[in-house]
Amino acid sequence: MTPADLLDPALLDAVAAVAGRNRDPDALAHAAARAAWSTIVEPGDGVAGALIAHLGAPEALRACLEGGTAPPGATDIDPGTWREALARWQPRLGVRSVREALDTAHRNRVRLLLPDDPSWPTALDDLGHHAPLALWVRGDIAPLRAQPSVALVGARAATAYGEHVAIEFAAELSARGIAIVSGAAYGIDGAAHRATLAAAGTTLALLAGGADRAYPAGHTDLIGRIAASGAVVSEVPCGGAPTKWRFLQRNRLIAALGQATVVVEAGHRSGSLNTAGHAAALGRPLGAVPGPVTSAASAGCHRLLREFDARCVTSADDVVELLSGFDILDGLTIDSPATDDSVRVRDALSARSWRTLDDIAARSGLSTRNVEAVLGLLALDGVAESSPAGWRRRAVRR
Amino acid sequence: MTPADLLDPALLDAVAAVAGRNRDPDALAHAAARAAWSTIVEPGDGVAGALIAHLGAPEALRACLEGGTAPPGATDIDPGTWREALARWQPRLGVRSVREALDTAHRNRVRLLLPDDPSWPTALDDLGHHAPLALWVRGDIAPLRAQPSVALVGARAATAYGEHVAIEFAAELSARGIAIVSGAAYGIDGAAHRATLAAAGTTLALLAGGADRAYPAGHTDLIGRIAASGAVVSEVPCGGAPTKWRFLQRNRLIAALGQATVVVEAGHRSGSLNTAGHAAALGRPLGAVPGPVTSAASAGCHRLLREFDARCVTSADDVVELLSGFDILDGLTIDSPATDDSVRVRDALSARSWRTLDDIAARSGLSTRNVEAVLGLLALDGVAESSPAGWRRRAVRR
Repeated sequence: MTPADLLDPALLDAVAAVAGRNRDPDALAHAAARAAWSTIVEPGDGVAGALIAHLGAPEALRACLEGGTAPPGATDIDPGTWREALARWQPRLGVRSVREALDTAHRNRVRLLLPDDPSWPTALDDLGHHAPLALWVRGDIAPLRAQPSVALVGARAATAYGEHVAIEFAAELSARGIAIVSGAAYGIDGAAHRATLAAAGTTLALLAGGADRAYPAGHTDLIGRIAASGAVVSEVPCGGAPTKWRFLQRNRLIAALGQATVVVEAGHRSGSLNTAGHAAALGRPLGAVPGPVTSAASAGCHRLLREFDARCVTSADDVVELLSGFDILDGLTIDSPATDDSVRVRDALSARSWRTLDDIAARSGLSTRNVEAVLGLLALDGVAESSPAGWRRRAVRR
Repeated sequence: MTPADLLDPALLDAVAAVAGRNRDPDALAHAAARAAWSTIVEPGDGVAGALIAHLGAPEALRACLEGGTAPPGATDIDPGTWREALARWQPRLGVRSVREALDTAHRNRVRLLLPDDPSWPTALDDLGHHAPLALWVRGDIAPLRAQPSVALVGARAATAYGEHVAIEFAAELSARGIAIVSGAAYGIDGAAHRATLAAAGTTLALLAGGADRAYPAGHTDLIGRIAASGAVVSEVPCGGAPTKWRFLQRNRLIAALGQATVVVEAGHRSGSLNTAGHAAALGRPLGAVPGPVTSAASAGCHRLLREFDARCVTSADDVVELLSGFDILDGLTIDSPATDDSVRVRDALSARSWRTLDDIAARSGLSTRNVEAVLGLLALDGVAESSPAGWRRRAVRR
């Protein structure tokens, strides 16, 4: 691969086919360079991110192709880091793999979305130099910027309880116009996507492998349905395998694209805890759904509550509150020992017999004056009633 | 009642019978005055607490008997508060009710425990002027000062899940020598007491009514068993009815006597939330056991987690940690995008075929030098193995 390869008309044509035709030649060259970078780096490569932010994708690629010392001006990359980076990028450089990625995308109606596109989800900017260099999108691109949005994630090995909660939350949040972001995995993810589709809501699946490649295979149909009404997204080019590394990095995209992240069920070492960690690192509100302490599938959620200061989320309302930024709810009303005389007066009343003021005062341990005042209020509330014989408790119809 | 009544030999005899015979006449007069105060005030009467702290119980009682203005020196009691207090105390003044309380206690083997007794639980001092003026104890007095101690409380309308958790926690905590404080109610309280008795642990029941009076009646046998090996305690004299006010005040004693409070199950408006509020107000560590969000019996626990910053408690170990003062646990290990090259190398290995260093470098997106270093570590861990043909993943026996 040489710098000139990036300007090859056939390559630019292939780029235009997947990145949009309304681009001038310079923009197309930029898109081609981004596509090339997408085939070179593993997700989350911060050195590539910094270099491209500094030089632009074509110049950064030229520097990579030329090797040698770090390009002048890229002062935040020290020589050792630069040598390391070249050593991991150069083995992957090849115009053929870029063409393959573009052609496979085109065949599978996967669009290449770039940061300069107005549809690019700016939420990803929070990832800094670790933001994806490009996104490969199967389906509609609008859901990528849908707001409000919530990442609903959880264990593959979910229980019926967890799937029930995921379905309830996804359906209720969808009904309120909140987009659901998840990872298309078995268990919680699948339940969240399915319920959102059933509720005609907006849903977004982030994949660890290529967007053309349904993973898990058992969710081929589900992923196809998500692509048909929402979006299936990956930062790895088409054909890319879903490796463990890519799963971990995919999780950062889920956390970044949800305005809040809610873990519905998670084992003690579930991958969902990694997503939760990314959400916390990004400063996104993090919620966890509690479950029985006897259920291993809730152990990870309880860890998040205990060790990660996640918010305890028990309903779609709680999730909405999470989105609104941890508003303080009305505190619990703790009965004040000093003031709640009405409780004592009510205790001292009988529902059957009339009691005198003095009797009620003695029984309640309050002064007659005080008792009289409280009884007046209780009468207004329909709790107490008086007669010439005294006072008694009134049966309250609820 | 006159001041002289307090020195009546018959009364002092009755006091000595329940408060201990090894007291000099002055101490007996003090005990008699405390016993009288116990019959006059409702639990948590801060004005009485302040007055007695200031003047001593006999002088305070004399001031109450004499009426008039607030006693000189009791400067923190304003005239209005003093008049209010007299108005609620004086209707209850009567030497007969003191005698009755003492005689009933004696007949029921209930001991009168006073703050100057070495067995007095100093944990109650944290309640300040709202501390009980005396305690009526059926059973052994040693459990009142047992440490470490945990208050295990919860809903009367408990589920099988909640009772299971209460039983597990109480049994495991008892096995570690931790005393269990609770309220002898149906549901969680009863399960906690029963499991502690079964484990031959130390348990303490705080009642809202007199210690001689088993409430609920269905727990007469259980309360008898608690008295036989632990202690049944009330600040209300024998014969006293368990009014709602006294339940709320009883909860403050549970919260004060437990070094930490754990709510196992609680409905949205459960009385256990009141106990939790007292624990929080006292600065005692507060834990709540999560449960299914679909269970109304866990809604109060989830409120505590969400609104009260209670600690999420899922095991006896978590309770022990609560006692040790919220030690920071090892944080969740969040995989670092920049350093975890071993994941990427492992992803790039095959279990079936041998791969060359260059191949693995290209697949992992890392430099050959880096891959070589990681493979060396993976080989040491028994995860990878090499041959002249290259490297492959090794099946790991777990």
